[in-house]
Amino acid sequence: MSVATYTVSGMTCGHCVSSVTEEVGEVPGVTGVEVDLATGRVDVTSDGPVDDGAVRAAIKEAGYQVA
Amino acid sequence: MSVATYTVSGMTCGHCVSSVTEEVGEVPGVTGVEVDLATGRVDVTSDGPVDDGAVRAAIKEAGYQVA
Repeated sequence: MSVATYTVSGMTCGHCVSSVTEEVGEVPGVTGVEVDLATGRVDVTSDGPVDDGAVRAAIKEAGYQVA
Repeated sequence: MSVATYTVSGMTCGHCVSSVTEEVGEVPGVTGVEVDLATGRVDVTSDGPVDDGAVRAAIKEAGYQVA
C-alpha cells in the first residue's frame, strides 16, 4: 500500500470534502481518499500505481486547486 | 407573488447554496428560492401562504442557521 499526499486549496466545507473524495476516488487504482479540510491535505491511498496527473485532474474537476 | 427574506449563516460555498435551495424549495407553497452566498440572504418566493416555521426548519435541516 502506498500513500500520495496532495495539498488542495479552495475547500470550505464538508460538501467540498465530499466532492474531492468522490472525484479522486474514481481514479483507477485509488483505494482510499482522506481529506483534512482545515489543512487541505489529501492523502490518496493505493495498492498499485496511480497516475499522478489523473489525481490532479480529478481534484480540478471537483473545482479545486492543487499545489 | 410574495417574497419572504431570511438571513442564513454558515454557508461557505456553492454546495451550501445548493443544499439550502433544495431543502427550502421542497417546502409546500414555495415557488422559488434565491440565495446570495456573500450576504447569506435567502429570498423565498411563493404564490400563496408559506409556513415560516417550515422554511426555518428546512434551512436548519440543510445544516445552517437562520436569524
